[in-house]
Amino acid sequence: MEFEFNFNRGFASDNNSGVHPTILNALAQVNNQHALAYGDDAVTQKAEDVFKSIFGADIEVFFVFIGSAANVLGLKAITNSYNAIICADTAHINVDECGAPERFTGAKLLTVSTPNGKLTVDLIKKHVHGFGVQHHSQPKVISISQPTELGTLYSIDEVKALANFAHQNGMLLHMDGARIANAAVALNQPFKAFTKDAGVDVLSFGGTKNGMMYGEAIVFFNKELATDFMYTRKQGLQLASKMRYISAQFIAYLSNNLWAQTAGHANRMAKLLAQKVADIPGITITQSVDVNGIFAIMPAELIPALQKEYFFYEWDESRSEVRWMASWDTTEEDIERFAATLRKLVLQ
Amino acid sequence: MEFEFNFNRGFASDNNSGVHPTILNALAQVNNQHALAYGDDAVTQKAEDVFKSIFGADIEVFFVFIGSAANVLGLKAITNSYNAIICADTAHINVDECGAPERFTGAKLLTVSTPNGKLTVDLIKKHVHGFGVQHHSQPKVISISQPTELGTLYSIDEVKALANFAHQNGMLLHMDGARIANAAVALNQPFKAFTKDAGVDVLSFGGTKNGMMYGEAIVFFNKELATDFMYTRKQGLQLASKMRYISAQFIAYLSNNLWAQTAGHANRMAKLLAQKVADIPGITITQSVDVNGIFAIMPAELIPALQKEYFFYEWDESRSEVRWMASWDTTEEDIERFAATLRKLVLQ
Amino acid sequence: MEFEFNFNRGFASDNNSGVHPTILNALAQVNNQHALAYGDDAVTQKAEDVFKSIFGADIEVFFVFIGSAANVLGLKAITNSYNAIICADTAHINVDECGAPERFTGAKLLTVSTPNGKLTVDLIKKHVHGFGVQHHSQPKVISISQPTELGTLYSIDEVKALANFAHQNGMLLHMDGARIANAAVALNQPFKAFTKDAGVDVLSFGGTKNGMMYGEAIVFFNKELATDFMYTRKQGLQLASKMRYISAQFIAYLSNNLWAQTAGHANRMAKLLAQKVADIPGITITQSVDVNGIFAIMPAELIPALQKEYFFYEWDESRSEVRWMASWDTTEEDIERFAATLRKLVLQ
Amino acid sequence: MEFEFNFNRGFASDNNSGVHPTILNALAQVNNQHALAYGDDAVTQKAEDVFKSIFGADIEVFFVFIGSAANVLGLKAITNSYNAIICADTAHINVDECGAPERFTGAKLLTVSTPNGKLTVDLIKKHVHGFGVQHHSQPKVISISQPTELGTLYSIDEVKALANFAHQNGMLLHMDGARIANAAVALNQPFKAFTKDAGVDVLSFGGTKNGMMYGEAIVFFNKELATDFMYTRKQGLQLASKMRYISAQFIAYLSNNLWAQTAGHANRMAKLLAQKVADIPGITITQSVDVNGIFAIMPAELIPALQKEYFFYEWDESRSEVRWMASWDTTEEDIERFAATLRKLVLQ
Repeated sequence: MEFEFNFNRGFASDNNSGVHPTILNALAQVNNQHALAYGDDAVTQKAEDVFKSIFGADIEVFFVFIGSAANVLGLKAITNSYNAIICADTAHINVDECGAPERFTGAKLLTVSTPNGKLTVDLIKKHVHGFGVQHHSQPKVISISQPTELGTLYSIDEVKALANFAHQNGMLLHMDGARIANAAVALNQPFKAFTKDAGVDVLSFGGTKNGMMYGEAIVFFNKELATDFMYTRKQGLQLASKMRYISAQFIAYLSNNLWAQTAGHANRMAKLLAQKVADIPGITITQSVDVNGIFAIMPAELIPALQKEYFFYEWDESRSEVRWMASWDTTEEDIERFAATLRKLVLQ
Repeated sequence: MEFEFNFNRGFASDNNSGVHPTILNALAQVNNQHALAYGDDAVTQKAEDVFKSIFGADIEVFFVFIGSAANVLGLKAITNSYNAIICADTAHINVDECGAPERFTGAKLLTVSTPNGKLTVDLIKKHVHGFGVQHHSQPKVISISQPTELGTLYSIDEVKALANFAHQNGMLLHMDGARIANAAVALNQPFKAFTKDAGVDVLSFGGTKNGMMYGEAIVFFNKELATDFMYTRKQGLQLASKMRYISAQFIAYLSNNLWAQTAGHANRMAKLLAQKVADIPGITITQSVDVNGIFAIMPAELIPALQKEYFFYEWDESRSEVRWMASWDTTEEDIERFAATLRKLVLQ
Repeated sequence: MEFEFNFNRGFASDNNSGVHPTILNALAQVNNQHALAYGDDAVTQKAEDVFKSIFGADIEVFFVFIGSAANVLGLKAITNSYNAIICADTAHINVDECGAPERFTGAKLLTVSTPNGKLTVDLIKKHVHGFGVQHHSQPKVISISQPTELGTLYSIDEVKALANFAHQNGMLLHMDGARIANAAVALNQPFKAFTKDAGVDVLSFGGTKNGMMYGEAIVFFNKELATDFMYTRKQGLQLASKMRYISAQFIAYLSNNLWAQTAGHANRMAKLLAQKVADIPGITITQSVDVNGIFAIMPAELIPALQKEYFFYEWDESRSEVRWMASWDTTEEDIERFAATLRKLVLQ
Repeated sequence: MEFEFNFNRGFASDNNSGVHPTILNALAQVNNQHALAYGDDAVTQKAEDVFKSIFGADIEVFFVFIGSAANVLGLKAITNSYNAIICADTAHINVDECGAPERFTGAKLLTVSTPNGKLTVDLIKKHVHGFGVQHHSQPKVISISQPTELGTLYSIDEVKALANFAHQNGMLLHMDGARIANAAVALNQPFKAFTKDAGVDVLSFGGTKNGMMYGEAIVFFNKELATDFMYTRKQGLQLASKMRYISAQFIAYLSNNLWAQTAGHANRMAKLLAQKVADIPGITITQSVDVNGIFAIMPAELIPALQKEYFFYEWDESRSEVRWMASWDTTEEDIERFAATLRKLVLQ
């Protein structure tokens, strides 16, 4: 390379972090001669087998480039354009995908306000009606994020309650698992326990935010839902030609508990950060720190100064709420310095 | 990694080849601490500057994951759903993107038969009519591939003639440059000479087929066409979160003439292969070997046996025409053995 | 016809009413020899002129078949798929068009709860943000219904406030005027005063609910917004071949104040109905009866019995709120009998 | 009405003709009190029954406004966006619907040149391949027009051959019957014989071109294909609120052989016209006059003068081929005068 980049670690997003060395190394390991393009290669076969070892053989798994694509194409597979998808108003599919779910599925998003990013049967009941009425978008999917965009977690029972409600109404349960490793570690449960076994029908299984370079998976727990999905992926511009390089990342990520180490570390760092700032005057943590995100209200006038040192995002300007994310590569020293900087700003 | 993969080099597709070591190394070089996600990072800034050094400062460039996305989103940027796009019936956008152009743009593809994959004004004239007639999809784009899917090349003058015709009719010229490096080397011209300077309006600039891992660019030579393109890319599921890793590849690829070395090598290997098989009885090369692809008619009954040794694709079963592609990593020894195998099969 | 139909007048919907005799007669008057199809005929020219006499010469007007199409195509004309449209959660475009707005525009609907179906700047402010952020659907349109789906009216000043807010933010104001005649009569204002002059950019101008057989108009107050609209209409499956029959209806409807007679009558009948039921025990009128719709809470257990006599729709089951609509052909006798039936049921 | 329109009968299009008096009368007959909107009325029930009396009880029929909508929504019902639809390059869905089929279905149109507008198995074979290949739009529908846009007819056996070929390949046969009455009369066969009984799966059944004001039907011969079609129609902006007025037209049209009288007359007038001009020097009839359209080559320099008297369309400028359409209201006198005018022009 012809010049030096100066990077710093911060708390803006786990998407800002780099790639775990083991993942980088996996790329090099499969970089050898020729492999059939578009997923017809042995590395991809192996990566699919790894997913089957986790979720059971009766699944279908497809790799795509990014989390938004995993969500949008997964939803496309299970909706028609006259359907409606129920989600939290804070859901990634609602606020962070530039309308791609509507654009690509044609379906309507029905959103509900939640105190903590989590749907409940009670909250969504009002949208589950109008079946058979031709004027109304037909409710078909409940979409939840695990963990949520507010850093909170569904318990297994909470997932089951939504799955049952969905299925009783002829609907399906979709889970956005962009940070699913963080959820699994926090719940101390295997992936399968709070997805397939809890009634989830389609899962976006993320890797990029937890140490991979690129690559997400769409997992169908009912294979019939995936009958034609290969065309949907291709038409959705998500079929990688040199797919072995996504597959290799997933093999490395899911082997030797790499995913658990990285996610577990990020979760611990978030808890540590929460602990370190909890007693700073004017700082109020607003959501349960279940995984690797911290939501906090802080003095509005101090935000720019803190951002100058560590870039991060304001979440809700109206109440000067900010978001801090820990990553797989966050260090205790990062936390100490960040907390100290914040404390100093507050106490000035 | 937990097991060994056995790969072999073949002639099926340049997409089957691996990643050039310099590219792999570039990934490692930017794998350091945190960088802003979604392209707001210094690596991406640098990569964009490299494109501007090639094409001039008055362009807009956007990175996406794959060539189909570069084509589809580039076309989306310059069409409305009531437009028509004119292309060769052999164009990648017509036969290899599973209808994504129609699906994503809503526009109609108007195709023409060609002897060699190349459009001419005469061939497309019949589709350039009906302007202002509300019943007819309004012609808006001529889309060409450089090189074509048949391994042939447009001369600069041929590109200019199509660009002029397009512009005279209020239309735009789109170029699919999935293998644009192979074209530049073969033409012995800078990229700019046969794109921007020849009147191309929007270009898909490929890298994956020539030694990159993933990553293509969409280059707008008229910046106004790109005003809102960042939303189109995001909604088109092509905004990479950890974009620095695409950008780093492009920096390495476009530095020190790496692109020219790899493409030049592939082109030479194709010519060598053509030469080595030309005198084998029953083998007829059907297209000019302008870049790295060879199209040849061979005895139908020998195809399976040859495929057993080296996988490749039949192109036109009706006349037992096959396609052999050379890659950046094809060796002379590969060629010798392939030609010898074929010769032996024929002479048995 | 081969058999008799038994119809009854009720209060379910003004869409259930028939066609005014003057409109039927207009159909016969233009039923003479041949006229150019698809709107290139003298009747359509005349109908467009009538609209221009109402709104000024600097407009563009297009006829379509139904109100949903007027809304959806009008919105399509002024949005890109990465845009967002802000509307009341009770808006027809949100609840009664089976997701056609999302399906056809690709855009996102951002909905707000309102006490009375009316948007205000305060209510929608939270959705007007994120400009220039590529992850967010870009707010582009505020869409209001005049009158609203709850039978309420915006004052001219209220429309102006929303128009100004829209324009200050680079957005546009869309008005669903499916019952615009009822609004004009109730406001005692010419159409132009609360549409074009108040800052509306695109208007759905309805006729079917007020005595026409079929046919709605899309009026663009900024002609530039309509540059390519003829293709959008055609592609949107709304270009009538024998358009003279829509046009003739509009000419008759807008001549001799027919629209004002029919809408004025319907409004009066609604007020009369409200008056007749106001003192019935257990009946609470929940919305201001500004035009021809009455929303009322009534004893839930009496709804089926009343529906048996007069079909109508429950609006909000959770509070046994019902909707009664008066039509251009509702008679005072209908009202008397309906009120008496209801009174009798309640007092039994 | 406030002014007089001057109409003339010509030969431009059967869409330019007016409405048969019996149809107009039917509109008046159902214009009585209230009927449930959106098709839940007795008139629509009756109209559906009339279709079932023609095609059998095991069908589903839906009414829409226009022929393009019948085609597009019928195709939408039987395709996914990754499918391909095979049709003649002269098909209405390819050249006269402004890309609505692609826009609404997302699917690709694969077109073939034909000498006479008619598909054959041989002509389309080349497009029926690539099943299971994820890069290729999957062929799903063969769409034919009966009669064709060139005024020619498929025999029952020809329809059957295409249906069999479609079904053998897991595909469906769609028929655009915009002028189906003209076909039935010309074939001297009941509708059912060359549609359902010949293997057609979905039919666009036209009325507007043969004496109706507006209204077309989509007939599903396999009810399972129509399971969710009510939502597709609504979302496709084709659900008429006052549907009884479409239904009444169809009842009148299909009763007492009105359709056969009007179509038979138009067919006879076309044959008469062909006969009257056949011996005029310089006039060559280019297609078999199977129904109500005549295609003829005439001296290019005389076209404008003839158009001045009788507006009609040039079909293929490159060979000065024109199209003349007879309508249900064309008179023998119209023919005589037209032929005389043409003869005079030629002989001058």
